[in-house]
Amino acid sequence: MFITLEGTEGSGKSTVLNRLKDWLMEQGHGVVLTREPGGSRLGRTLRSILLDISNKDLTGEAELFLYLADRAQHVRQVIKPALDEGMLVLCDRYADSTVVYQGYGRGLDPKLLHQFNEVAVQGLWPDLTLLLDIDPEIGLKRAMSRNLAEGICQTEGRFEAESLLFHHRIRDGYLAWGAVNRHRFAVIDASLSPDEVFEQVKTAVLAKLKPAE
Amino acid sequence: MFITLEGTEGSGKSTVLNRLKDWLMEQGHGVVLTREPGGSRLGRTLRSILLDISNKDLTGEAELFLYLADRAQHVRQVIKPALDEGMLVLCDRYADSTVVYQGYGRGLDPKLLHQFNEVAVQGLWPDLTLLLDIDPEIGLKRAMSRNLAEGICQTEGRFEAESLLFHHRIRDGYLAWGAVNRHRFAVIDASLSPDEVFEQVKTAVLAKLKPAE
Repeated sequence: MFITLEGTEGSGKSTVLNRLKDWLMEQGHGVVLTREPGGSRLGRTLRSILLDISNKDLTGEAELFLYLADRAQHVRQVIKPALDEGMLVLCDRYADSTVVYQGYGRGLDPKLLHQFNEVAVQGLWPDLTLLLDIDPEIGLKRAMSRNLAEGICQTEGRFEAESLLFHHRIRDGYLAWGAVNRHRFAVIDASLSPDEVFEQVKTAVLAKLKPAE
Repeated sequence: MFITLEGTEGSGKSTVLNRLKDWLMEQGHGVVLTREPGGSRLGRTLRSILLDISNKDLTGEAELFLYLADRAQHVRQVIKPALDEGMLVLCDRYADSTVVYQGYGRGLDPKLLHQFNEVAVQGLWPDLTLLLDIDPEIGLKRAMSRNLAEGICQTEGRFEAESLLFHHRIRDGYLAWGAVNRHRFAVIDASLSPDEVFEQVKTAVLAKLKPAE
């Protein structure tokens, strides 16, 4: 089973991923926790390029192709081998991020982006995509206070520096794209408390896990 | 005017590029000499990944997307601005390398590759592409003795390590692709002496320069 997490900055993806991993392992599943960009050896180099706030001159097209390179390598070298071994793979961001950020966010053609994704993912689409939905203003405040608390300000720096309007386009894009792909998307209200959010996540995962057990 | 150079390893691209640059500057042209991968700041990082012989696990799709990222950034940040300034741009490898190496060489669909290139080059195709054609066995011997002489063995290491069969597919691919695009390709016999090669190059460039002057 392949589960991906999507959402805007500060929607609480990391917290959910770690709780979900622990909970699934308690249930006896072998779990691989990974992320994009940066899930493969090559990807870690690409991640540092993509999230570096000093790369302001990165063009929209170059950015797109770097994400796709990261994904192609990640699918082939990490995700597929893990699934073949019977592991449950949890991935922080995947192909949907490209459609939403580069398409709805930066205005590239979503149809073309889907074709590009098809080459990168080689047929591997998630069984379940958890969309952590939150008002961007609340999310950005959360992300900023988290960064301050951790003393690292650049985690997702290049994106956090985008305008609030951009983040609203991303949120709306996620909801629209999730509606198109409702067979695998579960929309989670991420404005609630961590426990309430995790209850929704468990419900969505159990609904997908059941038929397989 | 935008001129690109294409050819297999050891076809003498670097020698031709430097002589062509000097000759064009003597004629009074402002010339920018650049290359792919590696023509932009981002590109230099990507070049080191792409040509590193230790990256044996790089998948065909990831390799493709890295070249496209390099190209998109290069076109927007280097080539277009130089052409807008009235410079003559000479580029060592360009979009044709992707069609030939990833298509004819690695078996990806040439039509899809052309679509990807269209996104990367944003309408900017060369006025003239000089194809330095040589038997791969002679070319590889040249490349190896050059590397030994320079004491640097890894210049294009990952590609030189490919089988001879691969290099034959590349040569044949270049000739086939050049025939499809004969309006901008000039095939140069690169097995001749450096002076004879350069005479052919000058003839091809003058034929394209004339109508503009």
